[in-house]
Amino acid sequence: ADGPTIDDLTTAYRTAATTVSDVVDGVLASIADRGDDGTWISVAERSELLLRAKQLEAADPTSLPLYGIPFGVKDSIDVAGVATTLACPDYAYRATQTAPVVERLIEAGAIYVGKTNLDQFATGLNGTRTPYPVPRSVFGGELISGGSSSGSALAVASGQVPFAVATDTAGSGRVPPALNGIVGLKPSRGLISTVGLVPACRSLDCISLMARNVPDIATVLDVVAAPDDRDPFTRLRRREAPDPGTLRIGLPDPGQLEFFGDAPMRDAHLAARARIGRDFERVVTAPFGPFLAAGELLYQGPWVAERLTEFGEFLSSHPDSVLPVISTIMQSGDRYSAVDVFAAEHRLGELKTEVRQLWRAMDVLILPAIGTTFTVDQVLADPIATNTMLGHYTHFGNLLDLCAAVVPAGLTADGRPAALMVLGPALADDRVLAVAAALSGDLVPPAAPPPGRSRPGEVTLAVVG
Amino acid sequence: ADGPTIDDLTTAYRTAATTVSDVVDGVLASIADRGDDGTWISVAERSELLLRAKQLEAADPTSLPLYGIPFGVKDSIDVAGVATTLACPDYAYRATQTAPVVERLIEAGAIYVGKTNLDQFATGLNGTRTPYPVPRSVFGGELISGGSSSGSALAVASGQVPFAVATDTAGSGRVPPALNGIVGLKPSRGLISTVGLVPACRSLDCISLMARNVPDIATVLDVVAAPDDRDPFTRLRRREAPDPGTLRIGLPDPGQLEFFGDAPMRDAHLAARARIGRDFERVVTAPFGPFLAAGELLYQGPWVAERLTEFGEFLSSHPDSVLPVISTIMQSGDRYSAVDVFAAEHRLGELKTEVRQLWRAMDVLILPAIGTTFTVDQVLADPIATNTMLGHYTHFGNLLDLCAAVVPAGLTADGRPAALMVLGPALADDRVLAVAAALSGDLVPPAAPPPGRSRPGEVTLAVVG
Repeated sequence: ADGPTIDDLTTAYRTAATTVSDVVDGVLASIADRGDDGTWISVAERSELLLRAKQLEAADPTSLPLYGIPFGVKDSIDVAGVATTLACPDYAYRATQTAPVVERLIEAGAIYVGKTNLDQFATGLNGTRTPYPVPRSVFGGELISGGSSSGSALAVASGQVPFAVATDTAGSGRVPPALNGIVGLKPSRGLISTVGLVPACRSLDCISLMARNVPDIATVLDVVAAPDDRDPFTRLRRREAPDPGTLRIGLPDPGQLEFFGDAPMRDAHLAARARIGRDFERVVTAPFGPFLAAGELLYQGPWVAERLTEFGEFLSSHPDSVLPVISTIMQSGDRYSAVDVFAAEHRLGELKTEVRQLWRAMDVLILPAIGTTFTVDQVLADPIATNTMLGHYTHFGNLLDLCAAVVPAGLTADGRPAALMVLGPALADDRVLAVAAALSGDLVPPAAPPPGRSRPGEVTLAVVG
Repeated sequence: ADGPTIDDLTTAYRTAATTVSDVVDGVLASIADRGDDGTWISVAERSELLLRAKQLEAADPTSLPLYGIPFGVKDSIDVAGVATTLACPDYAYRATQTAPVVERLIEAGAIYVGKTNLDQFATGLNGTRTPYPVPRSVFGGELISGGSSSGSALAVASGQVPFAVATDTAGSGRVPPALNGIVGLKPSRGLISTVGLVPACRSLDCISLMARNVPDIATVLDVVAAPDDRDPFTRLRRREAPDPGTLRIGLPDPGQLEFFGDAPMRDAHLAARARIGRDFERVVTAPFGPFLAAGELLYQGPWVAERLTEFGEFLSSHPDSVLPVISTIMQSGDRYSAVDVFAAEHRLGELKTEVRQLWRAMDVLILPAIGTTFTVDQVLADPIATNTMLGHYTHFGNLLDLCAAVVPAGLTADGRPAALMVLGPALADDRVLAVAAALSGDLVPPAAPPPGRSRPGEVTLAVVG
């Protein structure tokens, strides 16, 4: 996947190698070039974007951390004046307030480009559950883009925007980056305000970020991580600057890993693990059972009923407006009792205490982000089972209050993307990013290039123009 | 209420004015004197207690912070070798492990005396829901002792032990101290391990402390507050040493206070408020609505179903072993769905954000601990409505993740106890204790008396001998 990074664009602006108007034109041209491929649900008017570009051009490019950086927003997050659809046209409403996460980006100089496609009501990990065109991974071969943040990942992976704002409840912010060869961060819950997000499962929802590399993610996180008293889960970021080489890297016994019979994916992952064993000094074997047990609680437990608090009324009053697979999943929430919820929360509490003790022996845990990939047809043929497999390594993340970053990790022998997921306990975001950066050969925070110096691989103008 | 405080006993030991054996004899004599008044469910054997006394007498009294201090334990908390009954003899089992909170006390030199009475399954705020004798308040007039920690409060208020370990889910650790003229602390959840406590409502349970004065509470808290990885809610205590005179004291508009027609209690509370207005410089008016709204969520919402996760099976298999009022309350949990739980948790999340913002304008909130009192017959005649009234000011405490201390605040014109409750946000325990101490004229932390000097009001030997 080509396309400028945040750092590429920032350098280009500061060296006057490009203008915001040119970048905006480039984004619109690249969106037009791809046609209606299911990436975007709505795109801002060209006139609005050029007006915004002109405003920015009147400012000093060094005055704003995200000066002139275009971005996409998953269509479950409000932008004032724009319809929020959740990929359900009959549910759509025109937002009157902009979500604080988007507001902070705009204040930092970033340019809102449009709303990206998603599995309806952010319910799914595969990207096929949409009445709009079904996005395909940039890797081709009819591979799904992953979900629910299917369009956000594709917008970044296809080089249209350097970053996107997405969400992650059970893996929606990690599976799509894994399938598109980009970087995804699911921060600790409460670091980024969820105000203005239509909840999927409110006790677990998290805003997530996608970009082309880890330093770009870190740049965006610095802008959007901020306490918000209106968010019940808000908490302060804990800053640290660890040397990744000194951290204890947890890896499960390979026998505990599941690739669902996908031997090429298993080989690609084991190759990546071998590199970890060479690159990091302190590798420890991590018990994986408590993590998986928490994941099973999510997809076999009562949390699905939480979605009904948000969408139950709409589902009853508009049964034909909801995709059948979404309707089936949501209605399954009705079979759980209050006692079921409390019992599951108690079991989760026990698992949390087990996992807390595991963090004493390791600083991060590294897993495959996904155990296998699917084509669109494979998912449509078996929508529930394939979705469950896609979430094998992601379901437990928010339940256990973890943070996680996904980074590309090579290709399978048959050309599909492999990805690693770095997990840490709550508020270990900086640690997770440092390891993710080391895995992908980047530095965090990004070193500012000397002014005027061209960077290796600089492709800004060729791509955005 | 007479009886030695922790500080009294410590001084007596250090000046050799008494021995542990004498104190133990005194405790057993005072228990025998009161007869079976419903305070204790079980008392340790005299031989065991004297053996423990002899062990302590071989040690230096200055070597242990709670050297030779007798205490009681609510009978929902495990002590190895002793039956845990929850005031339900058919439910009782012999504990094999001692709860860490009790373990830490014993390690600090304190002497476990016995298990105290409670509302069955810790379900109630009135103390009448027990198959054992129903405890009466030390204030007489057939007043209830309050619940569910009825016996813990009575053991302290009647001077039998200087402190007791109790619990607080919806007010069980605050209503009994209010009705018995002693001090109660419901710390921030997670400060004291709940391991070894049979849960009432696990997501809200909290270990609480009762003593004769605030400095004694602070001494015990220092011993028992400790992180425990086995407790899902564990968190670190935040130490501060505020000057209470500089704190902003929140008081609701008097019109928002409810005394259920009890004019003498209203008068006593308003007199105490008038003293607050004189003694503290920075008094602010605090909106009380969000607190009450959270309290209503508890007693009209699905949390009652949480008790069924613990006791539902026993209730089904032993319907005749459970008091009818407890059975009725518990079974009401069956009518709630999973959606009800999530919806209530979401509403609670909104209220938490409102309350969080209120703490910006005040450091503590002071309320009546109870709005009125009841006799045993009044409660038996209307067990649900009276219980709800008793929890009017306490129901919301754990739901909103607050900490609270109850201190005596004079008498009503007809001789009943009035009490103030000081509330703070999570981890503001030291602040709450400092204000509670100021309200009751004590100092926190307790100033160590010069060795050998007799303290004013020293009554140790007369009481324990």
